[in-house]
Amino acid sequence: MMLLPKAVLAIAALAFSPANALWPIPQKISTGDGVLFIDQAVRVTYNGVPIIPIGYTPPASSHFDSRQIVQGGVSRALQSIFSTNYVPWKLHPRNSNFEPKLALQNRVQTIAIQQTGKDSASTFKPRAGDVDESYSLTVSKTGHVSITAKSSTGVLHALETFSQLFYKHSAGPFYYTTQAPVSITDSPKYPHRGIMLDLARNYQTVDDIKRTIDAMAWNKLNRLHLHITDSQSWPLVIPSLPKLSQAGAYHPSLVYTPADLAGIFQYGVARGVEVITEIDMPGHIGVVDLAYNDLIVAYEQMPYQYYCAEPPCGAFSMNSSKVYDFVDTLFDDLLPRVAPYSAYFHTGGDELNANDSMLDPHIRSNATDVLQPLLQKFLNFAHAKIRAAGLSPFVWEEMVTTWNLTLGNDTVVQSWLGGTAVKDLAESGHKVIDTDYNFYYLDCGRGQWVNFPNGASFDTYYPFGDWCAPTKNWRLIYSHDPAAGISASHAKNVLGGELAVWSEMIDASNLDNIIWPRASAAGEVWWSGNVDTATGQNRSQLEVVPRLNEFRERMLARGVSAMPIQMTYCTQLNATACALFP
Amino acid sequence: MMLLPKAVLAIAALAFSPANALWPIPQKISTGDGVLFIDQAVRVTYNGVPIIPIGYTPPASSHFDSRQIVQGGVSRALQSIFSTNYVPWKLHPRNSNFEPKLALQNRVQTIAIQQTGKDSASTFKPRAGDVDESYSLTVSKTGHVSITAKSSTGVLHALETFSQLFYKHSAGPFYYTTQAPVSITDSPKYPHRGIMLDLARNYQTVDDIKRTIDAMAWNKLNRLHLHITDSQSWPLVIPSLPKLSQAGAYHPSLVYTPADLAGIFQYGVARGVEVITEIDMPGHIGVVDLAYNDLIVAYEQMPYQYYCAEPPCGAFSMNSSKVYDFVDTLFDDLLPRVAPYSAYFHTGGDELNANDSMLDPHIRSNATDVLQPLLQKFLNFAHAKIRAAGLSPFVWEEMVTTWNLTLGNDTVVQSWLGGTAVKDLAESGHKVIDTDYNFYYLDCGRGQWVNFPNGASFDTYYPFGDWCAPTKNWRLIYSHDPAAGISASHAKNVLGGELAVWSEMIDASNLDNIIWPRASAAGEVWWSGNVDTATGQNRSQLEVVPRLNEFRERMLARGVSAMPIQMTYCTQLNATACALFP
Repeated sequence: MMLLPKAVLAIAALAFSPANALWPIPQKISTGDGVLFIDQAVRVTYNGVPIIPIGYTPPASSHFDSRQIVQGGVSRALQSIFSTNYVPWKLHPRNSNFEPKLALQNRVQTIAIQQTGKDSASTFKPRAGDVDESYSLTVSKTGHVSITAKSSTGVLHALETFSQLFYKHSAGPFYYTTQAPVSITDSPKYPHRGIMLDLARNYQTVDDIKRTIDAMAWNKLNRLHLHITDSQSWPLVIPSLPKLSQAGAYHPSLVYTPADLAGIFQYGVARGVEVITEIDMPGHIGVVDLAYNDLIVAYEQMPYQYYCAEPPCGAFSMNSSKVYDFVDTLFDDLLPRVAPYSAYFHTGGDELNANDSMLDPHIRSNATDVLQPLLQKFLNFAHAKIRAAGLSPFVWEEMVTTWNLTLGNDTVVQSWLGGTAVKDLAESGHKVIDTDYNFYYLDCGRGQWVNFPNGASFDTYYPFGDWCAPTKNWRLIYSHDPAAGISASHAKNVLGGELAVWSEMIDASNLDNIIWPRASAAGEVWWSGNVDTATGQNRSQLEVVPRLNEFRERMLARGVSAMPIQMTYCTQLNATACALFP
Repeated sequence: MMLLPKAVLAIAALAFSPANALWPIPQKISTGDGVLFIDQAVRVTYNGVPIIPIGYTPPASSHFDSRQIVQGGVSRALQSIFSTNYVPWKLHPRNSNFEPKLALQNRVQTIAIQQTGKDSASTFKPRAGDVDESYSLTVSKTGHVSITAKSSTGVLHALETFSQLFYKHSAGPFYYTTQAPVSITDSPKYPHRGIMLDLARNYQTVDDIKRTIDAMAWNKLNRLHLHITDSQSWPLVIPSLPKLSQAGAYHPSLVYTPADLAGIFQYGVARGVEVITEIDMPGHIGVVDLAYNDLIVAYEQMPYQYYCAEPPCGAFSMNSSKVYDFVDTLFDDLLPRVAPYSAYFHTGGDELNANDSMLDPHIRSNATDVLQPLLQKFLNFAHAKIRAAGLSPFVWEEMVTTWNLTLGNDTVVQSWLGGTAVKDLAESGHKVIDTDYNFYYLDCGRGQWVNFPNGASFDTYYPFGDWCAPTKNWRLIYSHDPAAGISASHAKNVLGGELAVWSEMIDASNLDNIIWPRASAAGEVWWSGNVDTATGQNRSQLEVVPRLNEFRERMLARGVSAMPIQMTYCTQLNATACALFP
C-alpha cells in the first residue's frame, strides 16, 4: 500500500489532465511529467528471453502456451501504439501546443516482462477467482519498463495499460508519453466482468464478435457471454443435429460453424476474455420446432403475452423423453467443443411461462407443484451432463427466485430482475452475477419494437417507450456497484456483473454505438470500483469524464465506433467547464 | 382520383407483401404481380432525346440545367438498382423461394421521361410551394416506363420511386421487380420536409453531410438545415473575417471552406435537397469572442444555467455598433455565396437569455422593455440584408413567442417548444415549420452530457435522463402530423417540419444510426400523411412496419448505417407476428 499517498495525488490531478487517461483507472498509480518516446527498436523480453515484438499472432489451437499468449499481447500493444494510435488534440484546449518537442531524446529502451507464477489449464478457462489478474508496471525516466505479474493474464492487462500511456505526435510517426516515471500496481475488484451478447434475435457477425472481444480486452473486461440461441433463431451449427441451423438460422449464411465457434473461443483466450456459451432452456427455445417435432410447446402461440415475454413463444415439453434425448445429443456434440476454452456452460432459464405447459398434451397444467419437480429433474439432468464435461453450470435467476430449484454449489446465478435480487441470492449463498436491468441493459430505452395495431393497443402503449426506458446512460451505469449494500461476508458471493445486449434492434449497423463507451463505465467500476479510496465517496464525474472522453477517442482510433459522450467543447477543457454546479 | 379504389386495395395488400415496399408510400398506387427484369441495355429518354444513363455526375457549377439534373438522377437511380441493391431475403419467410425464375424474359425496355413544365431559377432554390414536386410513373407489363412531371424535381422523385421497385437476385447480377404493371401518381403533403443538422457542437464531416443528403433524397426529404455555428465552435471559413474559424474551429482541419460549402449546396441541388444555412444569433454565438473583441457578452459565464441553456454561454452585445459592423461584413461575405443555391437564410434566435445583457456594459438590464426594441432593431437590420441578397429570413420561434418581434411576411418561423406553439403561430398568420421537441428531436433521450459533481447536483439529476427523454422513437414520430388539429385555412401556414439533430453526443461514429430510419418515419408523414385515405384513421403500424423494415435494408445496402427497428424474426413474417393484440 506504500503507493497510496502518491496515487491519491495523481488521481486528484487527473481531473485537469486528460494526459493521464488510463481506463480503467489502476488501483494504485503514480506518474511524473517526463517525456519518453517509443519506437520499433524497443527490446522486449519475457522471463529474460527476447520475444518477437511485432506482427505476431498466436497459432489457432486449443492448447495454449504462456509465451505465445504474451507474445500476442506484446504485438497488439505495440500495434496499438504504432498503428492505431491518435493525436489527442481533442483533449486539449483548441489551438494549444500540448505536444512534446521532437528533439527530446529519451526513449523506451526495454520492456522486461517477468511472470512470477506458472499458468495452468485454468488460467485459460478460469472459474471466477482461479486466476490472479494482478500486475505491476513501472516505467523509469530513462526508458526501462518492467512488468511483473503472476499470470499471463496479468501480463496482458499490464501491456494494455502500457499501450494507453502513449499518443501519436501530429508531426509524423512519433509516439510518446508525458508521464514518466510511472508506477502502477493493479488488480480487479471483481473476477467476472462481462458482456452478454444476443446472437439469436439479430445475427451478429463473427468479425463483430471478435472486434467486441478486442474492445473488451482494452477495457479489462474478461467474460463474453454469448446468448447464442433463442426462440427467434438457431444460428449454431450442431453437426449431429444438422436441421437445427438448417431450419432455424435466419439464412444459410447466418450461422456459426464449429470452426467459427472455436475461432471465437481462441480469439478470446488470446486476449484474456473467456467466452461463455448459453443455450437458453427450457423457455426461449421455440425455434427448435422448425427442425424437430414433438419437443416444443406453444411455438408461435398468440396472443403471445399469455405464453411468453415476446414473440415467438416456445418452450420444451417438460415431461418428454424426446427432450432428454435431444439435450443428450446436443450436449454430447457441443460441450466437448466448449470445454477446452471455457469453465462454464449457461443453460439459461429466464422467463419460462407456466402457461406454455397448459398446451403440453403430457402436462395440461400451469401449477407450480406440477412443474417444479419436472424442472428440477430436467435441470439435474442437464447440469450433470455439464459437470461430466468438466464445466460449471450457469443459470438465469428465475431458476431460483421463481422456481425455487436446488442448484449445485458450483452453479453461478445471473440476476437481472433488480430490486434486492442480487443481495438476496448472495445472502442465501449463491454465486451471483449482476445484470440488473435498471442499470445494465444496454439495449433498451430506444422505444418499442413490437407493432401496436390501431385501437386499444396503440392507445395503451403510446408514446411507445419500451419496458425499461429510458436509455441506461453511462453516468447511471457508473453509479452502480453490484455488491453495494451487501455485507462483506456475502459480498464475496457477488462475482461481478454482465451488461446485457439483447438484439431486437441491434445488428452490425449499431452494435459498437450501443456497447461503447457505456460498457467502459461498468468496466471501470468492476475493475477499480467507483469509490475514491481517499474520500470514500463515489468517484466524481469531474475526474471520470476526461478519462472516458479520452478513452473513447482511443477506442475510435482502434476501429470501434464508440459514440461521443460530450461535444468537443467539453473534451477540450477541464470537466468543470461542462459541469452543473448548484 | 380515378386510381383511388385500386390504391386502397394495394395498400391493404401491402400489410402482407413487403415486396411492395415503397418509402414514402405514394399518394396513389396500383400494382400488378408481373415480373420484369432490368439490365444496363435500358434506353432512357428525356423529352424524347436519349440521355447517358449510367455514370453521369452533373458538373460543379452554380448554374443548373434541367437536363444535367435529370441525367444525374437517372444515373443514381440505375446505380441504386445495379450497384447498391440487395437481395431481400430478410423480408420473406426463412428458407422460402421468393425469387422469380431467371428464365422469365420480360425486360424493362425504355424509360421515357417527359417534363411537362419548364424549370426556373426558383426550381433549384425554392421557397415553400415554388416547385410542383408531383410526378406520375407507369411501368407496363411489357417493360415500357413512363415518367411525367412538371419539374425536374418531380422527375427526381419519380426516378427514386422507380429504383425502389427493384431487387437484386441471389443468383447473380440480375435485377427484377415483381409488381408490373405499376401506376403511380404522387405529390407531397407538405412542401418543407427537412432535417436540421448541428455542425457546431461536434463537427460533422463533408462526406457525412453529403451522405445525409443522399439518404434524404431517397426519403423524399427536401430541406437540409445546417446549424453551422454556435457558442461551442465556428467551423465556417469566412474569408473577410478569417479569425472566426482560425480561433473558433475546434481544430484547423475541422472547417468548411467556401469550396466545401459550395460543394454541399450543389450536391443538394442535384438531388432536390435545398440546403439552408443558419448563423444562430444573437444568442448561441459566444465563440466569436475567441476571434473578435467587444462583440460578445457572458462568454463562458458560470454558473451557466443563469445565463444560457448549456455551456458555453455567450450572446451579442445588443447595443453595439461593432456588432452591426461585424454582421455587415459577415453577411456581405456569406450571403452572396448562399444566394445561388438557397431561398433562405436562418438567423436563429432561440434561447436568448436576458440575463446576458445584465453583464453588457452598454445595457446592464434584463428587462424586456429595454431589450425588445434592441432586438427588433437588430433583426430588422439583419433581415434587410438577407432580403437585399435575394433571400428570405428564417428564425426560431422565440423571436415571436418570447420577444414578440415583428417579422416580415416572408419570414419562416421554426417552432420547437411544443404545446400549441405551431397552432398559435399558424393562426396568427406566420409561416411555420414544426420541430416540436416532443416528437422531432432525434438527439435526446440517451442521457445527460453535462457533468454532475458529487452532492446536490448529482442527487438532483440522478438517474441522469436528459431534458427530453425518453428517446423519440419512430412510432411516436410517425404518429405526429404538424398540422393536425389546425383548421384548413390556417394549416396552409404550416409549411412542414424539420427533425433536429443537435450534436452534443453525435459525430461520425453514430450519425447514421441517430437519423435513420427515424427520419424516414417523418419523411413519409410529411410526404403522404399518416392517415389512411380509405379509413380516415392513422395508417396502421401493421401496414407501415414491413415497408420501413424493407426500406431500412435498402438504405443499408446503399451505404447508410440505419439501425434495425425489429429483429429478423419479425421482418421475415407479416407484421402481425410481432404485434400486440389485446
